[in-house]
Amino acid sequence: MNTNQAQELQHALEAIRQRTITNIYFVACGGSKAIFEPAQYICDLETDIPSALYTGNEFNYRMPKALGKTSLVVTCSHSGNTPETVEATRIAREAGALTVCLSFKPGSELWEAAEYGISYTWGPESKPSESNSPMLYRLVFGLLNILDPQEKYQRAMEALENLDGVIARNKAATLSTGMAYGADYKREPIIYTMSSGECYGVAYSFSLCLLMEMQWIHSQPIHSGEYFHGPFEITDYDVPFLIILGRGKTRSMDERALAFAKKFSNRVEVVDTADFDMHEVPEDLQAYFAPLVAGGVLRQYADGLAHHRGHPLSVRRYMWQMPY
Amino acid sequence: MNTNQAQELQHALEAIRQRTITNIYFVACGGSKAIFEPAQYICDLETDIPSALYTGNEFNYRMPKALGKTSLVVTCSHSGNTPETVEATRIAREAGALTVCLSFKPGSELWEAAEYGISYTWGPESKPSESNSPMLYRLVFGLLNILDPQEKYQRAMEALENLDGVIARNKAATLSTGMAYGADYKREPIIYTMSSGECYGVAYSFSLCLLMEMQWIHSQPIHSGEYFHGPFEITDYDVPFLIILGRGKTRSMDERALAFAKKFSNRVEVVDTADFDMHEVPEDLQAYFAPLVAGGVLRQYADGLAHHRGHPLSVRRYMWQMPY
Repeated sequence: MNTNQAQELQHALEAIRQRTITNIYFVACGGSKAIFEPAQYICDLETDIPSALYTGNEFNYRMPKALGKTSLVVTCSHSGNTPETVEATRIAREAGALTVCLSFKPGSELWEAAEYGISYTWGPESKPSESNSPMLYRLVFGLLNILDPQEKYQRAMEALENLDGVIARNKAATLSTGMAYGADYKREPIIYTMSSGECYGVAYSFSLCLLMEMQWIHSQPIHSGEYFHGPFEITDYDVPFLIILGRGKTRSMDERALAFAKKFSNRVEVVDTADFDMHEVPEDLQAYFAPLVAGGVLRQYADGLAHHRGHPLSVRRYMWQMPY
Repeated sequence: MNTNQAQELQHALEAIRQRTITNIYFVACGGSKAIFEPAQYICDLETDIPSALYTGNEFNYRMPKALGKTSLVVTCSHSGNTPETVEATRIAREAGALTVCLSFKPGSELWEAAEYGISYTWGPESKPSESNSPMLYRLVFGLLNILDPQEKYQRAMEALENLDGVIARNKAATLSTGMAYGADYKREPIIYTMSSGECYGVAYSFSLCLLMEMQWIHSQPIHSGEYFHGPFEITDYDVPFLIILGRGKTRSMDERALAFAKKFSNRVEVVDTADFDMHEVPEDLQAYFAPLVAGGVLRQYADGLAHHRGHPLSVRRYMWQMPY
């Protein structure tokens, strides 16, 4: 991470160290909400402090009664001006909670609303290890290390510094696969995604942001466990599924869904995070890091669709085009 | 509720009274998971004890670190033999948590796995007020009344006894609308549902269980708040939405989504829970009770689709047909 980020993170963690935290809320919308999924998953596994994840206005209107002075509320907005997320940060801060935001835009409304801000970089020129998810992971592992100091969390911090090479190598290894996926699936009006555990957020953002928002392709991010309790009846020879196999505790759930889907559909594509070469990341942390790599890899699948459909990922018909 | 149910509920509540509860987990799959959505919503609003909702195997493989002797774990399976839910109940009980299950089948595996069981009735011959959701509500309001005794929770218990009339009247009032919906939407290959807050679970079960499982129609239960952060770009003149307007705190989120969807799609159907005549239910509880009525009303929309598509709701191609 860069010098600003290191300082911002340090300030936020110092503030956390000085507080008693009894619950954690992650609040954001869309793609920013998706990156919180693995963070909440990691918290569930590593600490007995309960954590929960809400979309902005569900949090604002619901206003959980447990929100208060011993809450940590982490919010994220790329532009820093997502109204629901700004409002959530204000509400949380007024309730006495410790508020930390992540944003691409220091000085934005969100940045002003939160007590502590952590900036991230973005785009082809920037380092993936300084983008939103890795900065969030540093906050989460830093928090865990305060709650229950462990060398594992220190190793996690170090591994995040080596992320650029891991992501670049695995993107390079899957570049042609992503392009071929685009050619093969370009005529599909609907593509389901499926995953669970640490990788569910990747399926969520691929469905909602890449397929629906950026490609106008119908979708649903099906939870691999829920698949067998309703959604699997939709499976047929011509129904496309993009299944992301996790690398951790819930992998067998994804494998079961994959085995079934492959039996009855000829249109199943798999992104197996166990195939990622992540040797720089300690083995006991590879599952946690898998979504960070999967995000970069799947972006190439979206690039493939965009290219072969002649529909750039930057096109919108409503977003940024009108008030709503 | 019937005599057995009253006794079962009393035993479960007595056990809760004797324990210190610091967190609550609701665990189930598919349609049973959907009925837990408003229960978790009510807990968020009424108590500062954190609660969370998981599908069976996500809970089992994740095994939140906060699960322990001061946890209350509520599970539900209609058949009582959903393997993931039975396993979740066992895991929770082994961890020392207080386990309460709901099931149509007393004596089932689930029933045996849980420390306490609450039975419910089902089907055309039975009273809706004795079915799964109302029994769950009795458990939740009973729990809340133990944590923080209030006449509101006692009124809730009483109102649940008057539910049969409320549901029957509102079903009668919407019977022809549901049938007309089926005629109008029978050719649609995809139907999105949308809602939030107390009614999100109704959208979830309509999408996953009624449309996908029982009608093989593509779907996604979009959260009204998330709609504007990706999914809304899929909106077009011919894209069908079934929007369930809640009656409570998150209603304006649903209204905003409705206003946008109607502007760009000619295929928007609304189920407005504010139109339900719920005069037997105290006004401050009507929002909480809205999903119980909406469930019955929406079943008629599914009946309408089934009738006009010649595809009975009882048909399955995989479920109950093969091991998976």
